[in-house]
Amino acid sequence: MSQTKGRVTLPSEANFLKETKEILERWGADAIRDSDGTKLDDELKALDAKVYSTYFVTRGHNDFASTHLDECVQMLLMSKHNLAICDTLTIDFLDGFYKEQVVADYRHDPKRYWEVIDRTNNTIVEPDLWTVDQDTDSLTITSAIPFHEYTVSFFVYMIWDPTQMYNYITNNWQDVPHDIPFDIRQPHSAAFAKRCLKDWLQENPDTDVVRFTTFFYHFTLVFNAEAKEKFVDWFGYGATVSIKALAEFEKEYGYALRPEDIVDNGYYNTTFCVPSRRYLDYMDFIQRFVAEKAKELVELVHDSGREAMMFLGDNWIGTEPYGPYFSRIGLDGVVGSVGGGATLRLISDISGVKYTEGRFLPYFFPDTFYEGNDPCIEAIDNWLSARRAIMRSPVDRIGYGGYLSLAYKFPKFIDYIEKVTDEFRMIYANVKGQKPYSGVKVAILNSWGKLRSWQSYMVAHALWYKQTYSYFGILEALSGAAIETVFLSFDDIRENGVPKDVDVIINAGDAGTAFSGGEKWCDPDLVTTLRKWVYEGGGFIGIGEPSAVQHGGRFFQLADILGVDKELGFSLSTDKYYTKALTEHFITSDALTPLSFGESKQSIYALSEDTEIIEYSNHEVHLAANAYGEGRGVYIAGLPYSYENTRLLMRSIYYAAHKERNFHVWQTDNLNCEVHAYPENKKYAILNNSNETQETNVYDGQGKCQSLTLAPCEIIWKEIH
Amino acid sequence: MSQTKGRVTLPSEANFLKETKEILERWGADAIRDSDGTKLDDELKALDAKVYSTYFVTRGHNDFASTHLDECVQMLLMSKHNLAICDTLTIDFLDGFYKEQVVADYRHDPKRYWEVIDRTNNTIVEPDLWTVDQDTDSLTITSAIPFHEYTVSFFVYMIWDPTQMYNYITNNWQDVPHDIPFDIRQPHSAAFAKRCLKDWLQENPDTDVVRFTTFFYHFTLVFNAEAKEKFVDWFGYGATVSIKALAEFEKEYGYALRPEDIVDNGYYNTTFCVPSRRYLDYMDFIQRFVAEKAKELVELVHDSGREAMMFLGDNWIGTEPYGPYFSRIGLDGVVGSVGGGATLRLISDISGVKYTEGRFLPYFFPDTFYEGNDPCIEAIDNWLSARRAIMRSPVDRIGYGGYLSLAYKFPKFIDYIEKVTDEFRMIYANVKGQKPYSGVKVAILNSWGKLRSWQSYMVAHALWYKQTYSYFGILEALSGAAIETVFLSFDDIRENGVPKDVDVIINAGDAGTAFSGGEKWCDPDLVTTLRKWVYEGGGFIGIGEPSAVQHGGRFFQLADILGVDKELGFSLSTDKYYTKALTEHFITSDALTPLSFGESKQSIYALSEDTEIIEYSNHEVHLAANAYGEGRGVYIAGLPYSYENTRLLMRSIYYAAHKERNFHVWQTDNLNCEVHAYPENKKYAILNNSNETQETNVYDGQGKCQSLTLAPCEIIWKEIH
Repeated sequence: MSQTKGRVTLPSEANFLKETKEILERWGADAIRDSDGTKLDDELKALDAKVYSTYFVTRGHNDFASTHLDECVQMLLMSKHNLAICDTLTIDFLDGFYKEQVVADYRHDPKRYWEVIDRTNNTIVEPDLWTVDQDTDSLTITSAIPFHEYTVSFFVYMIWDPTQMYNYITNNWQDVPHDIPFDIRQPHSAAFAKRCLKDWLQENPDTDVVRFTTFFYHFTLVFNAEAKEKFVDWFGYGATVSIKALAEFEKEYGYALRPEDIVDNGYYNTTFCVPSRRYLDYMDFIQRFVAEKAKELVELVHDSGREAMMFLGDNWIGTEPYGPYFSRIGLDGVVGSVGGGATLRLISDISGVKYTEGRFLPYFFPDTFYEGNDPCIEAIDNWLSARRAIMRSPVDRIGYGGYLSLAYKFPKFIDYIEKVTDEFRMIYANVKGQKPYSGVKVAILNSWGKLRSWQSYMVAHALWYKQTYSYFGILEALSGAAIETVFLSFDDIRENGVPKDVDVIINAGDAGTAFSGGEKWCDPDLVTTLRKWVYEGGGFIGIGEPSAVQHGGRFFQLADILGVDKELGFSLSTDKYYTKALTEHFITSDALTPLSFGESKQSIYALSEDTEIIEYSNHEVHLAANAYGEGRGVYIAGLPYSYENTRLLMRSIYYAAHKERNFHVWQTDNLNCEVHAYPENKKYAILNNSNETQETNVYDGQGKCQSLTLAPCEIIWKEIH
Repeated sequence: MSQTKGRVTLPSEANFLKETKEILERWGADAIRDSDGTKLDDELKALDAKVYSTYFVTRGHNDFASTHLDECVQMLLMSKHNLAICDTLTIDFLDGFYKEQVVADYRHDPKRYWEVIDRTNNTIVEPDLWTVDQDTDSLTITSAIPFHEYTVSFFVYMIWDPTQMYNYITNNWQDVPHDIPFDIRQPHSAAFAKRCLKDWLQENPDTDVVRFTTFFYHFTLVFNAEAKEKFVDWFGYGATVSIKALAEFEKEYGYALRPEDIVDNGYYNTTFCVPSRRYLDYMDFIQRFVAEKAKELVELVHDSGREAMMFLGDNWIGTEPYGPYFSRIGLDGVVGSVGGGATLRLISDISGVKYTEGRFLPYFFPDTFYEGNDPCIEAIDNWLSARRAIMRSPVDRIGYGGYLSLAYKFPKFIDYIEKVTDEFRMIYANVKGQKPYSGVKVAILNSWGKLRSWQSYMVAHALWYKQTYSYFGILEALSGAAIETVFLSFDDIRENGVPKDVDVIINAGDAGTAFSGGEKWCDPDLVTTLRKWVYEGGGFIGIGEPSAVQHGGRFFQLADILGVDKELGFSLSTDKYYTKALTEHFITSDALTPLSFGESKQSIYALSEDTEIIEYSNHEVHLAANAYGEGRGVYIAGLPYSYENTRLLMRSIYYAAHKERNFHVWQTDNLNCEVHAYPENKKYAILNNSNETQETNVYDGQGKCQSLTLAPCEIIWKEIH
């Protein structure tokens, strides 16, 4: 039996009452939920726990959708690049798409709404130079230029909800109808969605919390001709685009978007592309619309005396929990999947709701819960990585998903989660509402700023990509560190300068991406503001290819601050003399060798003898620092996540901020351990982030040192005297 | 005693007659020369050998130069980037330069000729906003924008010849006057140079060959404040620039060059920068001038009954042996330093002279010829790498430089060179004037084309650079391969299309450089011509970042031909399914593993299942091929030089050309061996390129195979039946 109770959500399923009750008590759960594939029965609903029910707004109503196909969700897609061999080119524009998912929209005149582009000379092909054959889904250009490449941007109806499609295909379902998604921007759909929710609320009086999954627009997920994922963008607004939406946009903003503004050379404005003003306008337009429409549904929920919760997934597009309109929706809670510290902060830092909830791993599915496997391994890893972040900014609730009956067959796992839920409540009691001690305040600077807080470098939610892990480590490291972290956009800096209380700015990413900033760095105002700020004492950390754009004889526009630049070949004739690393430096003084920069960057060189080269190998610099007026720059070639690199980043931050002397305050000297202090309630905690026993020196708020031994995963709570 | 005689030049020195005669006979030398630091005495000059004498046109005449300082060589230099902190910024524009080498030109009004640039907003600062203090060599901007960076482009006089300066500093000379270089564009210098040569010819009747070292303008070599190399560009036109030159340029071309056209953001238009039209005009202007003035000197030499030879080094700038004006000079010979196969071809492929000569390594200097060292090691390596190239295109003579008395102390070395000189004459007798069998004709495509034949990827002459070795291997491999190699520029393709007889085009280099092509690839005509040509059967090989510029949804503009592109982050949302390498492929069918791509390239991915992935590791493609109409593309991530990579490139070329079936014609299957056939004179040779015994199968012109064993370094000559 749990020592404490509450703040935990349990998945359950029909005909599992006795065991559900047992676990409910052992885990101290105060809510139960259904999951994909499970239903709660009446006996379960009668337990002393709130009932969460999953609710889909725009799918699962084929009676309606199939009779209103003109209100089906639309997308603007771009064909492959097609090579003209002669002056006639016929393009199978749906080639490579999954025809069970998307069909061409011939309801609206292609000549008016589609766009054919010569990608070789970057011009639009006039509509009178092409024709569409609806029978064959093909488009023929009659005066193509041989050996130019052409693309077709065309409207489709998306006739299958991507999440249901994914589950259907993955689980090889049979005889289940394809959920047809409808667009609540359309009149019948809007009315239907509200009517439907009203009816549902009446029909489900036992539901305490309506868990919207989510609202209207699915993140962009397009399948290929082999029914496999072709394009996935967790942030993609692809499914919000429709002819009606674009018309309303034009009316509101006074200018029309071109198809190219949406398909963007086939990149579809992913979060890695520096957003254009036009695309930012479009996002804003969608966000306001989604907030307004979601609010109507939430009000219906409230009117019926229930709570409304949003699952940050599936159809979350346009809600933008860090955007300006989110709080207008009036949600009670947000729940999201927790893959580690950064994804926990992504949920827990959301404001404008009464509570946040993390859905922890592993999901109770047979891919983890099978005979011979130990689900505790994933659970421990998940908990240790998320716990660091909870210490900084707790979610209000934790929960799990899947088949409880499956998890129940693993008693060791049930035991472990019992400990986790108790530990969570203990942390929450000590931490919630407290401002934890932060030695330094850091701002992550990129094209997205606050809007994409904790969401940088993500493609599909929390998946590993070769091109991102060397940056995502920054977020993961910061999520649970004794650092206050905020997110700033280039526009923020241009418009308002650097916020007064920020000590260190981090710009990190590959050249040309939204995270590094690309052409943004040609803006003298941005560059000047940052130079002045650093010169007067600020700290600037560049990781990967920071401030990178070829301009004025530099590649890194803030090379003068960083003390390094990247050799692209143009300056090979200039001798590079500064190749000797310092034998010791504050930043690496407790580093284990060799340092790991992940994918790293090639051909970084020091600009002068003043640059403090901290790591030099293979004829290039990977770690350096540089004095700049009263401030400092630090360069790091890459930062994949590890406890070692977390410490390296912390030290870089303290060094950049000129706060080295404060480093041994609320600090440990064992990289596997961290300290979090809560001065207001006079408590501090020492965490063992590893599953092994650790010994460490612990430095308190006065820098006084004590020695401690921590059991695997242990948290030790102490009073501040 | 040598079996054959001639085609060899021997360095000698005073008081070394007996030994010189001995070596002259043993090596079959027919010419003797002086070197830096050595003089020939009368007894030596009386030997039965031509006498070469080094001649400097524009240095070593301080009596003249010091009384005509207004005719001293000029340069346009760019200061460091200087950060403005407030609205007044004083720039020590000579900071970082070596004041013994360069002094500011105050003879000409800085306000008129200099340029101050705000590099942050890329604008020129009006001259009335700055002043120059000649006493302190400083420039003050009075209305600077705080935290912008400024540079000064300023004229200097170069008061010390760079080569003499280098030797002076390196050898710590004392009490030797600094050679002041003068500019023969100036009236007194022009007259002096001719008068001086006339006098010299009269005073040196024993000289048979005047070895110009070289003519007028030194390659760009600027030292720093510590008297060490600061900037070196073997191709740099920096020392050709003067106020007079720019004025004459304007008169001739009808437009004025700005200082920025010369200093080019501090890159000084190195050979890695895609040349602007204006810079190409300037180069052409200098070349015509140099040809005209050099011709006058050569005519004086001819008038006195001697030969004129040019050393391809030191002051060679503007002669451009592959340029349109070179043959106008009327030189008898060109001599240059041979570092390997590519540098040999750089000399031997020059037309417009009667003979070419290679100066082989090692130079007879104490850095190699010291007790305990075996100079044969370097000599063998040099000879084996150059010999391959001689088999394709022989120089007419070989020679050495330095102190013969030093080499004489190494009898094994004297023996070895005796063999080399005999072998050279044997090869020459069989090869000269013959068209060797070439299975395929290849064109290297870059911004420079023919003008920089065999000169791509060079910074300082033949030195190793991290950023270049993965490309230079292409030239080294081709220099001695049974492939006909030509060099084409993008303009050549635009203007004339692909030459009829070219089978395969290679484009290789880092993105944005002159070798890859940068913005050139936005030109639809270029792209279209190449696509059509490949589609109709041509072969295209891309190495590194070929055809790379972000445009139209591609990074590699010929990605469709190559079957691969590079992921910059924008298309991470698109699934990359094609990750499985073929288990075998023609290109790697005799490769040793692991393959070596040198610096390689990150994040290359296959575009479709049609791409033949040949090597895939670390989540990226490094070697691939692709069918494109009747033609083929091949992608290689890098090609550092080795015998293995030479074979890999050969196979790639044959594959791209669709000539796999011809691969085993005049071929070996041992990578250390090569075959060269000369159908006209019915001979062929099998080379062992290694210093170890090799066994190999040899395929003749009908593909018939025989087995052979070759001694270390051996050449076996055979008759074609």
